[in-house]
Amino acid sequence: MNYRMIAYSVGRILVAVAATMLAPLGLSLLYGESIALAYVIPIVISVLIGLCVSAKAPKNKSLYGRDGMFIVAIGWIVISIIGCLPFYISGQIPSFVDSFFETVSGFTTTGSSILTNVEALDKSLLFWRSFTHWLGGMGVLAFAMAIFSSKDTRTTHMMRAEMPGPVVGKLASRWQFSLRILYGIYIALTVIEFVLLLFGGMPVFDSLLHTFGTAGTGGFGIKNSSVAYYNSAYIDYVIGIFMMLFGLNFNVYFLIIARKFSQIKSNDEVKWYIGMMIGAAVIIALNIMPMYHGFGRAFRYSFFQVSSIMTTTGYSTADFVRWPMLSQIILVLLMVVGACAGSTSGGMKVTRFIILMKTATHSIKKAVSPRSVFSVKVDGKTVEKNIVNGVLGYFVVYMLFAAVSILLISFDNKDFTTTVTAVIATMNNIGPGLGLVGPTGSFADFSALSKIVMSIGMLVGRLEFYPILILFSPYAWKRT
Amino acid sequence: MNYRMIAYSVGRILVAVAATMLAPLGLSLLYGESIALAYVIPIVISVLIGLCVSAKAPKNKSLYGRDGMFIVAIGWIVISIIGCLPFYISGQIPSFVDSFFETVSGFTTTGSSILTNVEALDKSLLFWRSFTHWLGGMGVLAFAMAIFSSKDTRTTHMMRAEMPGPVVGKLASRWQFSLRILYGIYIALTVIEFVLLLFGGMPVFDSLLHTFGTAGTGGFGIKNSSVAYYNSAYIDYVIGIFMMLFGLNFNVYFLIIARKFSQIKSNDEVKWYIGMMIGAAVIIALNIMPMYHGFGRAFRYSFFQVSSIMTTTGYSTADFVRWPMLSQIILVLLMVVGACAGSTSGGMKVTRFIILMKTATHSIKKAVSPRSVFSVKVDGKTVEKNIVNGVLGYFVVYMLFAAVSILLISFDNKDFTTTVTAVIATMNNIGPGLGLVGPTGSFADFSALSKIVMSIGMLVGRLEFYPILILFSPYAWKRT
Repeated sequence: MNYRMIAYSVGRILVAVAATMLAPLGLSLLYGESIALAYVIPIVISVLIGLCVSAKAPKNKSLYGRDGMFIVAIGWIVISIIGCLPFYISGQIPSFVDSFFETVSGFTTTGSSILTNVEALDKSLLFWRSFTHWLGGMGVLAFAMAIFSSKDTRTTHMMRAEMPGPVVGKLASRWQFSLRILYGIYIALTVIEFVLLLFGGMPVFDSLLHTFGTAGTGGFGIKNSSVAYYNSAYIDYVIGIFMMLFGLNFNVYFLIIARKFSQIKSNDEVKWYIGMMIGAAVIIALNIMPMYHGFGRAFRYSFFQVSSIMTTTGYSTADFVRWPMLSQIILVLLMVVGACAGSTSGGMKVTRFIILMKTATHSIKKAVSPRSVFSVKVDGKTVEKNIVNGVLGYFVVYMLFAAVSILLISFDNKDFTTTVTAVIATMNNIGPGLGLVGPTGSFADFSALSKIVMSIGMLVGRLEFYPILILFSPYAWKRT
Repeated sequence: MNYRMIAYSVGRILVAVAATMLAPLGLSLLYGESIALAYVIPIVISVLIGLCVSAKAPKNKSLYGRDGMFIVAIGWIVISIIGCLPFYISGQIPSFVDSFFETVSGFTTTGSSILTNVEALDKSLLFWRSFTHWLGGMGVLAFAMAIFSSKDTRTTHMMRAEMPGPVVGKLASRWQFSLRILYGIYIALTVIEFVLLLFGGMPVFDSLLHTFGTAGTGGFGIKNSSVAYYNSAYIDYVIGIFMMLFGLNFNVYFLIIARKFSQIKSNDEVKWYIGMMIGAAVIIALNIMPMYHGFGRAFRYSFFQVSSIMTTTGYSTADFVRWPMLSQIILVLLMVVGACAGSTSGGMKVTRFIILMKTATHSIKKAVSPRSVFSVKVDGKTVEKNIVNGVLGYFVVYMLFAAVSILLISFDNKDFTTTVTAVIATMNNIGPGLGLVGPTGSFADFSALSKIVMSIGMLVGRLEFYPILILFSPYAWKRT
């Protein structure tokens, strides 16, 4: 491993994070808050450490896949530690573990919160909290690297480790995935949503922060009752639809720009994603209709919640813990599926889900005719064996990690529903779960151990397991 | 498909089941119960249909894997329908769906019950209920076929579909798995447990029925408080240890008979099985110690429960729903793992679990060095790729089936814990779950739809998915 290059890269990331903190610092001065030091200290610390470590570029600049993963894993942990200092130093989140949990939840675009009264936070801190969603959504590190050297091919290793989802087919590479175009789309969608929310009468500050939360599919609310506070069908639908748009594979926007509409039509992931979302929204609307007097009103709440959960955002306009069990189970199952690969969302991703479904059909066919050869097809093309095996391996790792996390959280002796769904909600980067961690609850009550386990879970989920697991694997350290 | 041969085989199975019903009929006359007709009617029905269908043997006696699966699937459904008639006709379980659920639960050795007061049942019905466990444990159909023609090689297809677990290595075939030896061991262990329970002061009737429940890893209690009723450490340990013995791969007994002790020592499944069981029992004992005043007493309850759950038997000596969440989560995780392949237990089986664990380690190593080739080793030997893929496919099918079942059960609008664990408890053939279906609860409250879904789940779990799923697969019917 190229340790010097890893240190060098992490140093650069530190400087970049310090730069992003200038925004809340400025806001804090603007609003006349007394917590400027809470930003200045971490900025100074990270700039100093960052510059020391990356003072001179190492001669050997080669980076391999594993190095990229190490940089990503260490980078995300380091920015979470630096990023949590404003909450901690300002004293507005008095516990360090809580501050760390909240910041990891922000950067990983999870949106699970330990705050019981979010409205008590200073405005600049609210801004920073939501800003981490926006930064984390598209990959902080690739972003940090892009600032310094956008043409650097070394960033691709990091991007690959940071970008969610398996790459099926040649879609991505054919379009020469460029960070610039990717951020262009991201920023454009952000601006459009922001403007649309302003039109709906939402204050500027609120519009901006909700847009950050939507774009990163994060879901930190800035009101105790989340988006329900605004009680506006227009706002619900704007955010609901934009959550859906940010959960789409970003390739789709490339294809739209290139006017290759037929390719969008033949994209299985998009079809399944939209199909499952609309299907689930309709079923839940029918299920909760008696509570909301009519299908229209019920659909408004069900669509928002399905879009929020499936894209792993986590905003809420209703306390879905009170919905019938069928609706709750549908939401929990969607938590695991997640949205499209190549989007800002968490979860297992629809592509993997499709491959798993087809593998299951396979296994049954194989039992009928053991000697026949079958292949898994996505978008009409056969998926390579090693990608299918990769997805199966991922699924097993995913399930075992969930089991171990649930076991560790159970030391807290919360009820079964809370224990299980807290893990599902964090490792899939959703935000709320059921039971005590439902939309009106919080993660405050958990022990420090549980909060650390869930923080690791959020990182593991966001970075799709391997970078973080490799960090804990003796095998990876041994092989230098 | 050889439909005539399938019908012929199912006909023979019907006659065999009628024969087994003579036992409760005799008992019922002996005890002077007034429900003799409840046995006579199904016996007459099944003998008549059975003889008509299997009157003359078809000329083409060839059976392939798929035919074997069809026979097993149809056979198990048919015997469950016939077997439930005594409960229904006697009026002691007034609903047909309930009677069917209870009988499926018996034959599949699940032990989930819809009865809220089991002690109210007539003795002959209690006997029949537990007897189905004993019959179902080792595979009713292979048993039925063995009665008629023990040398028939055709039975192997059925046996393969009925016997749990993937066959890893050549252990089984090398020892020329013979039904006779298998049943010899099964009956010998049954007799030993029966005698040991008698020594403990348990009445003859109770000893016999509890032995049936242990041998089949079924777990139907005959007292409302299950085994806790006897309140004897001796009885707890006898049943606890025999559950463990019936959960062992029966190959181990072959090896003991053949004095190949070194092969037992190098058997990974046995090591993991015993290790996990003792480990879990110790952790739970430490966890529940405050409730039971001392480690000794706590271990008695924890060992019994761990052995009962891991072997998928389902007896209880304590209301584990009141234990700390850590203990409950450990039990739920063990429900999914199950005991050894080649035993009478349900669940995924320890072998599959080992392969899944090693696949997970694999995936992480693969992420570190993508070009390296790794292999999964069990018992020191590399497991063939297609067996590993088979296990992965099985796991995916298992999880998807669980998800769909939970979704369907959620229509009942029970709480999350009950909804999820009812499915886990039935499809892994355990018996009790958590929440309303805990050790002191029952499955009575579920709707007919849920009971049918869970009945299918029990069959699917017992027959390891494919026979039942094939029955519902258009693909299998098409390929004649």
